[in-house]
Amino acid sequence: MNTPAFFLSDNAAAPCPEVLAALAAAAPAQAAGYDGDDWSRQLDGLFGALFGRECVVLPVATGTAANALALACMVPPWGAVACHTEAHIQVDECGAPEFFTGGAKLLLCPGAHGKLTPAGIDAALASHRGDVHQVQLATLSITQATECGTVYTPAEVSALVAHARSRGWRVHMDGARFANAVAHLGCAPADLVAGIDALSFGCIKNGGLSAEAIVLFDVALADQLRWRRKRAGQMPSKGRFNAAQIIAMVEDGVWLRNAAAANAGAARLADAAAQRLLHPVEANELFVQLAPGEPERLREQGFHFYDWGDAGSNEARFVVSWDTPPAAIDRLAAALAQHG
Amino acid sequence: MNTPAFFLSDNAAAPCPEVLAALAAAAPAQAAGYDGDDWSRQLDGLFGALFGRECVVLPVATGTAANALALACMVPPWGAVACHTEAHIQVDECGAPEFFTGGAKLLLCPGAHGKLTPAGIDAALASHRGDVHQVQLATLSITQATECGTVYTPAEVSALVAHARSRGWRVHMDGARFANAVAHLGCAPADLVAGIDALSFGCIKNGGLSAEAIVLFDVALADQLRWRRKRAGQMPSKGRFNAAQIIAMVEDGVWLRNAAAANAGAARLADAAAQRLLHPVEANELFVQLAPGEPERLREQGFHFYDWGDAGSNEARFVVSWDTPPAAIDRLAAALAQHG
Amino acid sequence: MNTPAFFLSDNAAAPCPEVLAALAAAAPAQAAGYDGDDWSRQLDGLFGALFGRECVVLPVATGTAANALALACMVPPWGAVACHTEAHIQVDECGAPEFFTGGAKLLLCPGAHGKLTPAGIDAALASHRGDVHQVQLATLSITQATECGTVYTPAEVSALVAHARSRGWRVHMDGARFANAVAHLGCAPADLVAGIDALSFGCIKNGGLSAEAIVLFDVALADQLRWRRKRAGQMPSKGRFNAAQIIAMVEDGVWLRNAAAANAGAARLADAAAQRLLHPVEANELFVQLAPGEPERLREQGFHFYDWGDAGSNEARFVVSWDTPPAAIDRLAAALAQHG
Amino acid sequence: MNTPAFFLSDNAAAPCPEVLAALAAAAPAQAAGYDGDDWSRQLDGLFGALFGRECVVLPVATGTAANALALACMVPPWGAVACHTEAHIQVDECGAPEFFTGGAKLLLCPGAHGKLTPAGIDAALASHRGDVHQVQLATLSITQATECGTVYTPAEVSALVAHARSRGWRVHMDGARFANAVAHLGCAPADLVAGIDALSFGCIKNGGLSAEAIVLFDVALADQLRWRRKRAGQMPSKGRFNAAQIIAMVEDGVWLRNAAAANAGAARLADAAAQRLLHPVEANELFVQLAPGEPERLREQGFHFYDWGDAGSNEARFVVSWDTPPAAIDRLAAALAQHG
Repeated sequence: MNTPAFFLSDNAAAPCPEVLAALAAAAPAQAAGYDGDDWSRQLDGLFGALFGRECVVLPVATGTAANALALACMVPPWGAVACHTEAHIQVDECGAPEFFTGGAKLLLCPGAHGKLTPAGIDAALASHRGDVHQVQLATLSITQATECGTVYTPAEVSALVAHARSRGWRVHMDGARFANAVAHLGCAPADLVAGIDALSFGCIKNGGLSAEAIVLFDVALADQLRWRRKRAGQMPSKGRFNAAQIIAMVEDGVWLRNAAAANAGAARLADAAAQRLLHPVEANELFVQLAPGEPERLREQGFHFYDWGDAGSNEARFVVSWDTPPAAIDRLAAALAQHG
Repeated sequence: MNTPAFFLSDNAAAPCPEVLAALAAAAPAQAAGYDGDDWSRQLDGLFGALFGRECVVLPVATGTAANALALACMVPPWGAVACHTEAHIQVDECGAPEFFTGGAKLLLCPGAHGKLTPAGIDAALASHRGDVHQVQLATLSITQATECGTVYTPAEVSALVAHARSRGWRVHMDGARFANAVAHLGCAPADLVAGIDALSFGCIKNGGLSAEAIVLFDVALADQLRWRRKRAGQMPSKGRFNAAQIIAMVEDGVWLRNAAAANAGAARLADAAAQRLLHPVEANELFVQLAPGEPERLREQGFHFYDWGDAGSNEARFVVSWDTPPAAIDRLAAALAQHG
Repeated sequence: MNTPAFFLSDNAAAPCPEVLAALAAAAPAQAAGYDGDDWSRQLDGLFGALFGRECVVLPVATGTAANALALACMVPPWGAVACHTEAHIQVDECGAPEFFTGGAKLLLCPGAHGKLTPAGIDAALASHRGDVHQVQLATLSITQATECGTVYTPAEVSALVAHARSRGWRVHMDGARFANAVAHLGCAPADLVAGIDALSFGCIKNGGLSAEAIVLFDVALADQLRWRRKRAGQMPSKGRFNAAQIIAMVEDGVWLRNAAAANAGAARLADAAAQRLLHPVEANELFVQLAPGEPERLREQGFHFYDWGDAGSNEARFVVSWDTPPAAIDRLAAALAQHG
Repeated sequence: MNTPAFFLSDNAAAPCPEVLAALAAAAPAQAAGYDGDDWSRQLDGLFGALFGRECVVLPVATGTAANALALACMVPPWGAVACHTEAHIQVDECGAPEFFTGGAKLLLCPGAHGKLTPAGIDAALASHRGDVHQVQLATLSITQATECGTVYTPAEVSALVAHARSRGWRVHMDGARFANAVAHLGCAPADLVAGIDALSFGCIKNGGLSAEAIVLFDVALADQLRWRRKRAGQMPSKGRFNAAQIIAMVEDGVWLRNAAAANAGAARLADAAAQRLLHPVEANELFVQLAPGEPERLREQGFHFYDWGDAGSNEARFVVSWDTPPAAIDRLAAALAQHG
């Protein structure tokens, strides 16, 4: 008997009880639609307290919308975003950044384990002249945690921010798994956003239902973002449900508890596959060099996961969610340990 | 004591119990994200049965997104949409159609009580030459029920569709209140969509929480719409919650029951203000010529509603929702009758 | 014998001798391409002297490009341009403003004889709320001379500029026939551009060959315009030919001599049709109410011109160019006088 | 005495006598503007004869406009263009392809000496999944002659076309120096465009003044291109001057004579630097590994050229134009031979 066990992604996890309760509480009819309700009005203050810094917070329906809308406020149509070669904005958003910015370009920078470095950025962009015949570098986009399941330390983020600032660029952080990064580091959230203009604060992968938050630290961009959000069909009339979800995630530390649970599961799996990890496991994803035939055997045992890397490479990605059953993790750990 | 009573809009109404139950049922973690779940896969069949016609159904987060994405599939950047002067796509979407289409134009046609007619369209567009120096008319967009709370009969829709087709245009229907129109007419839903390429099927104003449905009757546009939707950040990873809401609305006739309740409330108010209605009341909105001083007096009595028309005109709009308390309707009816 | 005589438009007139000579003089190979040549570097100073005001001047290939690029620097994608119902940017540019701005809207204001007035603008935009659900009014676009062959006086321009400024809007002037306006008024060019941010300075209709000039009085927009121009394929590598043409037009008053010649021809025709002019004749176009059958008779006599207004209205437009043969004008004047 | 000698680019060369004569011949006023003149109407037939294949030809003002407009007709906003890492559309057009397509992406493929190969394309795009979360590969863009001064043989073009077709892609050719390629190969022009949908046929670098030609072999795209061209401000009212230039280039083989002259000059220089060429010299550009100090010495002798490659690499690019003085070539050949 092979009970199915799902490690494909955290993106179809259950919403957590706090989120479901918040939706129910926000259900009764309200006087005002859009952002005129009591929940929506709390967001700026709540995140301001969380980050120790003034900010404007606007919910949207997806991480893709959060990234693309934030970037559109920071990169002109003739501009460019420097980002990692494997960044979600480059690889998995069907050109949303190009659509929302009016045709800006992403200039790609490689980096080990999904991480950018100042030197790596310089090397990748060395041939970019920046004269009138070329797009103008305007923004750096960092993914925290990265696409490889690694986490930038506060010092690494600061170095990247300083590098960007020295060139006159703004900085965006794709934080689809920002909670996992903070939970891993055990730092204050503020430690990771100094000098950041806009953060895509992920909720959905971490126990949310249908809302992500754009956190604008450069509040001068807020009006522009409001117009762009409306124009993009990302300003729902029952906005209270988005705001209520986000509040439920952030209040009382739910976001960090959920992320810590997911991270712990991934750490447990990492122990079992310690000799063959492709990247350090610092968040809730692990990338494993499987043996020939092992992917098939694992699937026969009921494990669902994605092949990664080139065809035939036997690389695999496993993602743990806040609600992945411990038994499933145990079972996968045991299976992975057999080739350890 | 003046208890507040809200007639501002149906857009902040409560989600109905069936929708809340459906969200709860869809909560457990799923194997597949995006549209790979059991709920999302039911949509095409469900609407195909409802309309007696093959269709592809894709949920989005707002009515603005539904309209703009549908139009983008039917109007090239150098194209034009003919629509009513007061259409939501022109007046209330912050240029979303222009954004999603890549810069198409809306060409405006007046018409009494919010309704277009073939002759009115011809008159409004008489000076449009259509040569290479002008945008190319590509699509007609009809709002059903209209912005004035009126409803096109099946014969009126057919005449507009025939007119559009004779000129080689496609037809889009903004059905933010499509349910109210069907409930008013008592017709089969199919009677209102013959020859329509895409329908924005509204749920949110009618008891939904966060999802509208784009119903594509021209299924050849489906792939394009899928890419555009992803690219617009309108394809959530937990797509099952959008699909589940929509299913809950359509199954067992919830959508028509909710709409009928709202329509009945508006009809009751219309009786009370029968001598001074600005438009026939055929859906869930009424527009009333108030007397001087009456807006202030009504507001003192706790009624919330929008002024309409030009400043100082004493015109007012009242909207009834599926869940507007009967007592509130009674009270407003009595207040309006005093000037009847 | 009916010799053909062309009054269709000034847009296919011959380039004037000064322009042809300038092209020949710029022919030899140059060291630097794009805007690095001696001609291109003269433009800012030349126009600065002409208008008594600092400006940045960038040539483009068409009036449509001049208008759309200038507007794109002054209207965000979520913005709106107020303009006359019959403005070239609305009627004859196939949506170029929408394309270059990333989807901004044009909000149309009627006005007698092609002219906007502050009161007319206010009336036309009275119902525009300007909240987050609507596009944001950002710029007024004035056409000088107008599409109806009339000319704004300096006082009229100033009143419109003051009106726009009081609302926080920028001001663009479509000067495809700016020379005709200045020649008519006999004023200093500076009298017509106080408070204007950008002027599309027309050359092609007035004896140029292939270049129009964008004159940016708000020089803070210059970098943006340079990037947008390059990105639009409007920055030719042999930019010296565009600059040389424009210099030839402006130096030694060629532009005003050419325009005065065209205006004088139109004035002569206006005398002959004085009783049936549809608009005052202040530039080089006249609009005449012909008698039934007269269009056919004029065409039999070899006159080429466009029907105007609604089908069957017998309205006609006649345009005189800088190089329209005097004999052709005499002949048309005589023909028009027969019904005078 | 160091006479200056210019090898920076062919893009500021003189227009050739045939082109200047054609402009003069087209100068007199014409009845019809835009594309309604006798010159514009000849283009389709002239190129149809040249390529032995039906085509529609539309002039534009720059190579950037030619490339971006052609691509916009062949790649949807959610699409992608596969092109060489060093392609002009990627490196030197300030994001024009993204602007004109509405935000499509360029996916970059490396290749030795500026040339793409089917295997190189496959390798570069191996990780592109092409599911709904990614842009859709739609078109291959080939540069002929390449950015490295090399030339694809007819067999190489055919292999790339076949590869693209097997994947369902269209094919665009950036032929800014197409003439140099044909002159080098001595083949029929038709041998290089089999299976190509659109060719940017360069004139300006090869003795033209201000017009390039888009040659559409897929004539079904012609209407779309006409609208896009108008909307982009690339349809001048005195279109006859663009058409006349292009006709002058193509008639009587001027384009091939000019290109052959430039190629011959480059070949002469290549002989002198044969031991240190970075790429084969097959068109009118050569890339040379200079010795330390040599760039400075060459500049002291009056030679103008661009440094190439990374800073300090002592790589240099030299471009020969149709009209580069033989004495200048002799002098540079002698100078280069000193380090041969």
